[in-house]
Amino acid sequence: MSDPVIDVEAYLRGLQDRLCAALEAADGGASFMEDAWTRPHGGTDLRGGGCTRVLANGAVFEQGGVNFSKVEGSRLPPAATAHRPQLAGAPWTAIGISLVVHPRNPYVPTTHLNVRWFQARPENTAAVWWFGGGFDLTPFYPFDEDVAHWHAVARDLCAPFGAETYAKYKKWCDEYFFLKHRNETRGVGGLFFDDLNEWGFERCFAFQRAVGDGFLDAYLPIVEKRKNMQFGEREREFQLYRRGRYVEFNLVHDRGTLFGLQSGGRTESILMSLPPRVRFEYGYTPKADSPEAQLAEYLKPRDWA
Amino acid sequence: MSDPVIDVEAYLRGLQDRLCAALEAADGGASFMEDAWTRPHGGTDLRGGGCTRVLANGAVFEQGGVNFSKVEGSRLPPAATAHRPQLAGAPWTAIGISLVVHPRNPYVPTTHLNVRWFQARPENTAAVWWFGGGFDLTPFYPFDEDVAHWHAVARDLCAPFGAETYAKYKKWCDEYFFLKHRNETRGVGGLFFDDLNEWGFERCFAFQRAVGDGFLDAYLPIVEKRKNMQFGEREREFQLYRRGRYVEFNLVHDRGTLFGLQSGGRTESILMSLPPRVRFEYGYTPKADSPEAQLAEYLKPRDWA
Repeated sequence: MSDPVIDVEAYLRGLQDRLCAALEAADGGASFMEDAWTRPHGGTDLRGGGCTRVLANGAVFEQGGVNFSKVEGSRLPPAATAHRPQLAGAPWTAIGISLVVHPRNPYVPTTHLNVRWFQARPENTAAVWWFGGGFDLTPFYPFDEDVAHWHAVARDLCAPFGAETYAKYKKWCDEYFFLKHRNETRGVGGLFFDDLNEWGFERCFAFQRAVGDGFLDAYLPIVEKRKNMQFGEREREFQLYRRGRYVEFNLVHDRGTLFGLQSGGRTESILMSLPPRVRFEYGYTPKADSPEAQLAEYLKPRDWA
Repeated sequence: MSDPVIDVEAYLRGLQDRLCAALEAADGGASFMEDAWTRPHGGTDLRGGGCTRVLANGAVFEQGGVNFSKVEGSRLPPAATAHRPQLAGAPWTAIGISLVVHPRNPYVPTTHLNVRWFQARPENTAAVWWFGGGFDLTPFYPFDEDVAHWHAVARDLCAPFGAETYAKYKKWCDEYFFLKHRNETRGVGGLFFDDLNEWGFERCFAFQRAVGDGFLDAYLPIVEKRKNMQFGEREREFQLYRRGRYVEFNLVHDRGTLFGLQSGGRTESILMSLPPRVRFEYGYTPKADSPEAQLAEYLKPRDWA
C-alpha cells in the first residue's frame, strides 16, 4: 500500500495546478503569482510550508486565491475538529487546498472550495485521519438555472458514494455557512463534509477527488454564462455591500480561518479569502420587489437538486 | 443615595447628545440620523432598548456612529467579564455608549470611545457592578504632536484618580487593542479599563465621566488640525487598506463585538463600528522609507505622555 500522505499531497498539488490553469483561461488575461513559503517552528507551533497563488485585477476575477499548504503542529487547536474534541492537543499534520474567487461582475457568484486531509497522533493510541472540505456558491443576483446546475453537479458527484451523501453534505453546508447574527446563509450552499473516515481511506480519498475535480464543472459554466452581462454602479455597490457579509462570516464564524489564525498559520495566506473591496452600510435595506430584495429568498436552505 | 442605574443612564444619554452635537459641528454639514429600538425577550435572551445614531457621508466624517443602549439578559455571556468568570450565566444589566468615527481624510485618525456600566445578579450572593470603557486612536499617517496631545489628555484626566491610573490603563489599552495575527497594535492606544469597582461607586462613576467628557478634548483638536490637509488616491488607498485591520480586529478579537453578537444584540448597531469602505490586498507591503512604511513604528506600544 502506498503512503496516504504522499498520495494526498500529490493529488492536491496537481489540483492546485489545474484550478489555477482553468481560472486563468476563464479570465482570459490575468495570471496567478505564486508565493512559496516555509514555516519553521520559530515562534509558533507550526512547521511546514505551502504555496499561495493569487490572481489580482483580472478581467473576470477581481481576485482569486488558490492555496496549497502542508503543515504540522505539536498541539491540534480545538477549531480543527468538531467531532473529536479528545484529539485537541495531539500532534497533527494537515494537507489542504483552499480556493476563493471574487469575480468583478456582480452577476458572477463568489465561490469557495476547500479539500483537506488531517492526521492526529494522540499519545497512547493509534493515529487518526480524516478528510474534510466542500464547495459553496455565493451569488449576488442569483439565477435559478445557475443554482440548479451547481447543485446538480454536487448531487451527481456524490451519487457513487451513497444515496444519502448529497443530502447529508448539502444540509451540513447550509448549516455551516450560516450567519446566526444575520439569520441568513452565506449563499446558496453546496457541499460541506468533515471528520470523514468511515468509508476507509481509498473510498474517502476518492470522494475528496470527486469534490476537487467536480468544482470546475460546477463553477465554470456559470462564469461563462454571466461574465459578459452588463452591470452598472448599482449592481457594483450591492456586490460590495454583500461582500461585507462574506467578511463577517469568515472572521466571526469560519472554523478554517479561526483554526489558521489560532494555530499560528500564515496570516496573508489565510486572509486572502477576504474580498478585495468591500463596503458596510448601517441599516441598509433593499427596496421592496427590487432585484436586490430577491436575494434574501435565496439565503434560506432550499432543495435545488 | 440616588439610584446608580438612573444616574449612569442620565449621564450616558446626555453624553450621547453632547458627542453627536460636537461631531456635527466639527463636520460642518452632516447630521446624525437616529434609530430608537427596543428588544423584547422574543427569540433572544435580551430585553431593553437603545438609541443608535449614525452620521453618513459627512464632509469630514465618512461615517460616525454613537450608540446608547440599556439592555438586560438572564444569562451573562462569558465575553462580558474578563476577570469574573464566576458571573457568567447570571442575570445582568448593561448601560453603555459606543462611538466609532471613520473620517474621510486619511490624515484624520479613526477613533473609538466606549463607556459602560454592568451589573450582574448571581444567585445566592449580592449583586456586583463594574464600570468599563476607554478610548483609542487609529491614525493612518500619524503625527507625533497629535499622538502626544491625545495621550496628554488621557494622562491628565486620569491624574485625580491615582498616580498609577494612566500608566495602568494605557498599558491595558495597548494589550487589548493588539492584533496577534498581525503582531501590531490597532493604533496608538489611549485608555482601556474594565471590571472597575474598587474605588467605590461615586469615584468610579466620576472616572467614567472623566473619560467620557475627556474624549472630545482629546480628539477634536486633531480633527481640526488635519481635516483640511490635501490628500490623493494614494493616501485614500492606504486608508482603505488599513481600515481592513480595523475590521479584522473588531470581528476576530473585540470582546464588545463578540459579546453583542453572542448575547443576541442588535446586529446593525453593533456592526456600525465597521468602516464604510475597505479594501484587502494580499501581500501588501509599503515601500521602504515611504510615509506608509512609517506607520509600523507607531503600532508598537510606546511612551507618549
